[in-house]
Amino acid sequence: MDWLDEIKWNGDGLVPAIAQDAITGEILMMAWMNREALALTREHNRAVYWSRSRQKLWFKGEESGHVQELSEVRIDCDADVILLQVEQIGGIACHTGRRRCFFRVLNGGKWHIDEEIIKNPQEIYQ
Amino acid sequence: MDWLDEIKWNGDGLVPAIAQDAITGEILMMAWMNREALALTREHNRAVYWSRSRQKLWFKGEESGHVQELSEVRIDCDADVILLQVEQIGGIACHTGRRRCFFRVLNGGKWHIDEEIIKNPQEIYQ
Repeated sequence: MDWLDEIKWNGDGLVPAIAQDAITGEILMMAWMNREALALTREHNRAVYWSRSRQKLWFKGEESGHVQELSEVRIDCDADVILLQVEQIGGIACHTGRRRCFFRVLNGGKWHIDEEIIKNPQEIYQ
Repeated sequence: MDWLDEIKWNGDGLVPAIAQDAITGEILMMAWMNREALALTREHNRAVYWSRSRQKLWFKGEESGHVQELSEVRIDCDADVILLQVEQIGGIACHTGRRRCFFRVLNGGKWHIDEEIIKNPQEIYQ
């Protein structure tokens, strides 16, 4: 059986994919993959997601240059979540220009931003 | 506005929640939360998920004792993914008796198990 067939794609043919920095262990982001995105990720050795908002393949870093070089792919016990170990080129995973998407922390019943913007998004996406 | 109102719950009222070991940085598991689960997680300072298969609140570790003590809650840029930093009591997050749910790695076009079973599930769930 093909390794892709072992994955339990949801009703929309997608699974969540978590990207973790292979060096620091930081969780950079979570996005979605369909079968083609995961196959392309392996083929290109770079993260390719499925954009639910744009309904098309999302070659991460295509515009920004902030590609994610793949070092490992894992699957969980239920075969419905993917975990990628990646090297984040440019050190920016988030479209807001921050290192990672998880830049808000809960404190005293409020969300607080505790990560700085490394690069202005207007400079990233020209 | 309530901090819970800022979260973009999906059509089923759920968001994915990633549990990361606060000390080692390992990704232990990903599960789902609804509004009540997240509110209870904060209240109890322990991870509470929503079980999609059983359609009820899942007080993680209720049966096994493998609770996840909460140290931090984050949300991503789109406000639709939660990241928890936890202390995994018992050192076992997965129902298979392994440290983490991501015990299969892709290698040569096949999934390989590379984490040992720490405790037999029959001994965990008696």
